Amino acid sequence: MRELGVALIGTKFMGKAHANAYRQAQAFFSLPVTPKLVVACGTNAQETQEFAAHFGFRRTTTVWEEAVWAEDVALVDISAPNDLHAPIALAAARAGKAVFCEKPLARNLAEAQGMLRAVREAGVPHMICFNYRFFPAMQLAKRLIADGALGEIHHVHVLYLQDWGLTPGLPLTWRFQKERAGSGALGDTAVHIVDLARFLVGEITEVTGLLATFVRERPFPNGPGKGRVDVDDAAAFLARFQSGATGVFETSRVALGRKNFMHLEVNGSQGSLFWNAEDPNWLWFYSREDPPHQRGFRRILVTEEVHPYAKSWWPTGHILGYEHTFVHAVVELLQALGEGRNPEPSFVDGVKAQAVLEAVLLSGESRRWERVPT
Amino acid sequence: MRELGVALIGTKFMGKAHANAYRQAQAFFSLPVTPKLVVACGTNAQETQEFAAHFGFRRTTTVWEEAVWAEDVALVDISAPNDLHAPIALAAARAGKAVFCEKPLARNLAEAQGMLRAVREAGVPHMICFNYRFFPAMQLAKRLIADGALGEIHHVHVLYLQDWGLTPGLPLTWRFQKERAGSGALGDTAVHIVDLARFLVGEITEVTGLLATFVRERPFPNGPGKGRVDVDDAAAFLARFQSGATGVFETSRVALGRKNFMHLEVNGSQGSLFWNAEDPNWLWFYSREDPPHQRGFRRILVTEEVHPYAKSWWPTGHILGYEHTFVHAVVELLQALGEGRNPEPSFVDGVKAQAVLEAVLLSGESRRWERVPT
Amino acid sequence: MRELGVALIGTKFMGKAHANAYRQAQAFFSLPVTPKLVVACGTNAQETQEFAAHFGFRRTTTVWEEAVWAEDVALVDISAPNDLHAPIALAAARAGKAVFCEKPLARNLAEAQGMLRAVREAGVPHMICFNYRFFPAMQLAKRLIADGALGEIHHVHVLYLQDWGLTPGLPLTWRFQKERAGSGALGDTAVHIVDLARFLVGEITEVTGLLATFVRERPFPNGPGKGRVDVDDAAAFLARFQSGATGVFETSRVALGRKNFMHLEVNGSQGSLFWNAEDPNWLWFYSREDPPHQRGFRRILVTEEVHPYAKSWWPTGHILGYEHTFVHAVVELLQALGEGRNPEPSFVDGVKAQAVLEAVLLSGESRRWERVPT
Amino acid sequence: MRELGVALIGTKFMGKAHANAYRQAQAFFSLPVTPKLVVACGTNAQETQEFAAHFGFRRTTTVWEEAVWAEDVALVDISAPNDLHAPIALAAARAGKAVFCEKPLARNLAEAQGMLRAVREAGVPHMICFNYRFFPAMQLAKRLIADGALGEIHHVHVLYLQDWGLTPGLPLTWRFQKERAGSGALGDTAVHIVDLARFLVGEITEVTGLLATFVRERPFPNGPGKGRVDVDDAAAFLARFQSGATGVFETSRVALGRKNFMHLEVNGSQGSLFWNAEDPNWLWFYSREDPPHQRGFRRILVTEEVHPYAKSWWPTGHILGYEHTFVHAVVELLQALGEGRNPEPSFVDGVKAQAVLEAVLLSGESRRWERVPT
Repeated sequence: MRELGVALIGTKFMGKAHANAYRQAQAFFSLPVTPKLVVACGTNAQETQEFAAHFGFRRTTTVWEEAVWAEDVALVDISAPNDLHAPIALAAARAGKAVFCEKPLARNLAEAQGMLRAVREAGVPHMICFNYRFFPAMQLAKRLIADGALGEIHHVHVLYLQDWGLTPGLPLTWRFQKERAGSGALGDTAVHIVDLARFLVGEITEVTGLLATFVRERPFPNGPGKGRVDVDDAAAFLARFQSGATGVFETSRVALGRKNFMHLEVNGSQGSLFWNAEDPNWLWFYSREDPPHQRGFRRILVTEEVHPYAKSWWPTGHILGYEHTFVHAVVELLQALGEGRNPEPSFVDGVKAQAVLEAVLLSGESRRWERVPT
Repeated sequence: MRELGVALIGTKFMGKAHANAYRQAQAFFSLPVTPKLVVACGTNAQETQEFAAHFGFRRTTTVWEEAVWAEDVALVDISAPNDLHAPIALAAARAGKAVFCEKPLARNLAEAQGMLRAVREAGVPHMICFNYRFFPAMQLAKRLIADGALGEIHHVHVLYLQDWGLTPGLPLTWRFQKERAGSGALGDTAVHIVDLARFLVGEITEVTGLLATFVRERPFPNGPGKGRVDVDDAAAFLARFQSGATGVFETSRVALGRKNFMHLEVNGSQGSLFWNAEDPNWLWFYSREDPPHQRGFRRILVTEEVHPYAKSWWPTGHILGYEHTFVHAVVELLQALGEGRNPEPSFVDGVKAQAVLEAVLLSGESRRWERVPT
Repeated sequence: MRELGVALIGTKFMGKAHANAYRQAQAFFSLPVTPKLVVACGTNAQETQEFAAHFGFRRTTTVWEEAVWAEDVALVDISAPNDLHAPIALAAARAGKAVFCEKPLARNLAEAQGMLRAVREAGVPHMICFNYRFFPAMQLAKRLIADGALGEIHHVHVLYLQDWGLTPGLPLTWRFQKERAGSGALGDTAVHIVDLARFLVGEITEVTGLLATFVRERPFPNGPGKGRVDVDDAAAFLARFQSGATGVFETSRVALGRKNFMHLEVNGSQGSLFWNAEDPNWLWFYSREDPPHQRGFRRILVTEEVHPYAKSWWPTGHILGYEHTFVHAVVELLQALGEGRNPEPSFVDGVKAQAVLEAVLLSGESRRWERVPT
Repeated sequence: MRELGVALIGTKFMGKAHANAYRQAQAFFSLPVTPKLVVACGTNAQETQEFAAHFGFRRTTTVWEEAVWAEDVALVDISAPNDLHAPIALAAARAGKAVFCEKPLARNLAEAQGMLRAVREAGVPHMICFNYRFFPAMQLAKRLIADGALGEIHHVHVLYLQDWGLTPGLPLTWRFQKERAGSGALGDTAVHIVDLARFLVGEITEVTGLLATFVRERPFPNGPGKGRVDVDDAAAFLARFQSGATGVFETSRVALGRKNFMHLEVNGSQGSLFWNAEDPNWLWFYSREDPPHQRGFRRILVTEEVHPYAKSWWPTGHILGYEHTFVHAVVELLQALGEGRNPEPSFVDGVKAQAVLEAVLLSGESRRWERVPT
């Protein structure tokens, strides 16, 4: 079986999720390609070594270029802050490596387009880690919609609410700096719901939005004093889909009591569905085909043998967690590489989601509806 | 249209629920018989007059015999404490009046049987107010089971939990005295779930149970000091149904945090359903006939035009409350009287439920399974 | 006790809800003023007589002017279609009668302002029936916010979804005609959530919105053929509150599977709450004051003695329905009249809600943010 | 760091869960002892090799004795069918190896007691895999009860319902044979809820129960025809706890629509809690200490930094799955071994749970309450 050397750049939240994904994909799935955890790259040498020891990476570095150009590396996994996505991806493309990049693809549309151009010109495989697509419930939702079980789609609404932005004393990390993150909640969390909406219902053509910042100063991470937050804590926008459906989207980091609350709902002429990322094993589905006196949203526990990915894990009713989405994403990545096709979602999807964010940002300034650039 | 003079005996919780029911039945339903609120009877003259003024009774009394024997009274409604059920029902039967009696029918089986005998011998119509049957969701459940949508029934479980018994300073009312109430939670709340189980799944043949009292003394209502509670705060029992199904029943007045929590579940070979009295407008139904990847409990909002009683009230989605069950019970009562048939549930159902309670009490002492007397 | 003659104009959904409210208010509450159901007015004489018989109106008419000017009428209740609100209210004001008007106050802002001017100039009491304020859970929400339990408000989001617009064969009633209704879902359902948001969080200063129509033709009610729907099936808008909070609002009549789904959520710096009109007896409340390991949304069953209105109804855990909101509204109306103050919400609230709708409509055309006229 | 050679016996559902647990414990936790996956033992050589390749075992065998006695093995993990628990545990004890055994400890009480005697005499560490204790929510429940947040416990009720027994064509595996499994749902699933109840509320002193079998014949796994099922599909029992609390327990494999539904509820004088294994990241907690108008069950998402195990995984709101319980159990095992203490729960807990099951079985025959042997 073919082996694939992996360089993982980033060892925090996402780095951990990706490292785990390679290991679990191999343990639970039959893959055409075996990932070899070659090198882990982080900013702090000692922490990176500990990380590598836990997850079984052979070596570590604090210099990402070294990881990218290493001969035994065939796949570059970008789990670093947003401002590093483009430089690493461009280098990886130049080095002829496959690239697996965390979302958002970049800090802005131009940067994202540059990355897509680079991987295309280099002819390297590229994937963006929109992991929420890989919840079994979202795969089932996709199937139901593709099967016509919802009919013509009227409405999409997604509220994606978190409250970690209200943690007392939370420092001014890169996530609160426009220079490094591109935007705040918009690029961090709204990008997920834009992708899910595109995945399920298709392209968004125009938007009108607002952005809001509630906590305007945060303490510097290393040293005294406070610095200014120049990104959004929250964003909301209305959308029109190509298909005629309407969209309502909202995200926040300061919605107290909501932890990873993503209520996604799609209403169609024949059926509707909704789902929440805090209860991700359940898909709720309503069908007009049920007898009138028996109609109601069915609460489907998406862990049956007939459900996506379920057979590889546990018997029915034994639920999966958040991290499994990354495992499934890696399975898609490795299967695609094994089959010689580009994985999905690709940088194309990364660019398209970024285009929607860009239109929202623009609309926030122009105070008008804006077309999503294509 | 025929008028029917009503004497209502009891003006507390149940008296209020019944008084309201007559008024609302007439306002919202087309009835063959019009109830005329003739006389309200309570223990306190002034309070009874206020009650009568609120609900539109023509006169009041504090002597129930007077109410029963009044010439302009054709229906005696017994909403008084349990120890008065039998004497009033017997008098009403002697007086040739129809009888509508709150649950439990009596303090014990012998008393209940005597009441049934009396109404039968007198040939008067009789109904027991098992109001929970009259939630639209319970009527729909009955229909689904009757239609075979659940197949062969395997299990029935009902937890009926309340916590009012933990209210600080709650006095030693009649509900805590065996002499007046017959039993505690068993006769007060378990009787509802026994009736619902019989309504949906049929007869119970044997039981084994336990009774427990946690608050052993309570303050006297009128005067200093405390008296002994000699009834159960909680009861639980296992049951076998004639059909082969198993039953698990539990009730309590001291289950903190549960207000009127009645989780009723029925599992069959082809379908299952569950329901909760704290969310009574929703019926959850699971069907094996759904496509495998779409199976899940449907949360049916039982307010559609096709649902029981719904058309008489509001458009879909506008929910009904607790009191509506009494209205529906009165509709059944008046329709039956109009059609010249005995209403359902009748004293026969009251006796059968009482027989189950009696077997539970006996089992609590014998510490063995006991047959339900027939 | 003072009596108050009531003329009820309109005998359909809202007429029924109002008629019931007067009766139930008197039965369950102690009121300083007793409503006397004097005259019911509808378009069909026979149906109106049946309606009157059910609810106990002394007489009927099909001419609303007659009802308004009748000497024994002191309160004019406008439960008729939207295009009649203004003419009836103006007549009632001229006749010196108190006015209780269904929402929306009018078909548009100018009309609503005219109504406010009329009742003010005439010096008659005026109330608008924003009945959703009168759910006990909404009153409790108001109290929690007023007590500071939520801190500074960051976000308000309300999705109000129904699906009756998808009923096969649904005729082109007045609700689908701009001339008679003013707007579609916007005026019919969005107006409720605008009012609730104002009630809880204060004034909205600007909005940007979209309107959409999915079913463009519907059969004529009386006769062959189909006519054009010229109002919205769905509307959504973003909002800024005076306080700095953001708002996201959406409503639809074509959201399949949603019956009377109104998810209202308010997130603040110290607490959050949410609520749904399909489960209206429950208020969910999250408090940062709870110990960190015990924090979570509390599901409060708003039926305790300490809760708004609860003592007048049933013991804890016995839930109220949709219609109770109208009863509570009527209680406020009659108490205010008894106390010689104007009831709340008044036509002022009706105008302010209408101003928000007007800005949404304008924004739907201008495709920009629009100020809410003041 | 010390290494510990692991022999895993059993490669099906539980073998997979255990294999995964060793790997994940090492990846996500800081452990005093490193598990080395030395040998995997299964009945089918090829399947065992595939299993070993997936999870990284160095070698395989089909002879469990070989695995137990191997010099490089220090821990024997028994994930084999119930009838092998005792022989393997006895051999492991003789060989001086630590033992980690799946539940139920044995097929019956005598066998379980023999196992406890063996490990005690050999002085080897022993642990039983009651993995449900290791859901963070159950650990939090334990803490709340230990802190007195529930006061005096009145009631425990646990319904543990599954429906895999209704799968069409399900063969007569060892789980349906008394000779191999000891009992049916009782030993398979009831044992979990007995342990959880003991963990949270303490010892059970007496029980009365029923057992029921609905599917009496099943197809032979290898060959034509059907064989008789001689174990229970469902079991239910009432219990008394030493503390005076009452218990109601039910389990089934034929409760259609329920997948891994374990509703566990504990009601006390000061607080209550409930939890469901199908939504295991949420603990519901009700406290009498909340202000009266704010009381309700809090839905706590047990993923905060302050919650058990959470810091080792993901940021708040990112949920864990079923398999994580095994990881946490292994963490306890390895930490105890590192600290030189016996892990918990131990074979003592295995024996005590088995004693309860034994009393239930006996009661099923005697049809009386039975004391739990001590």
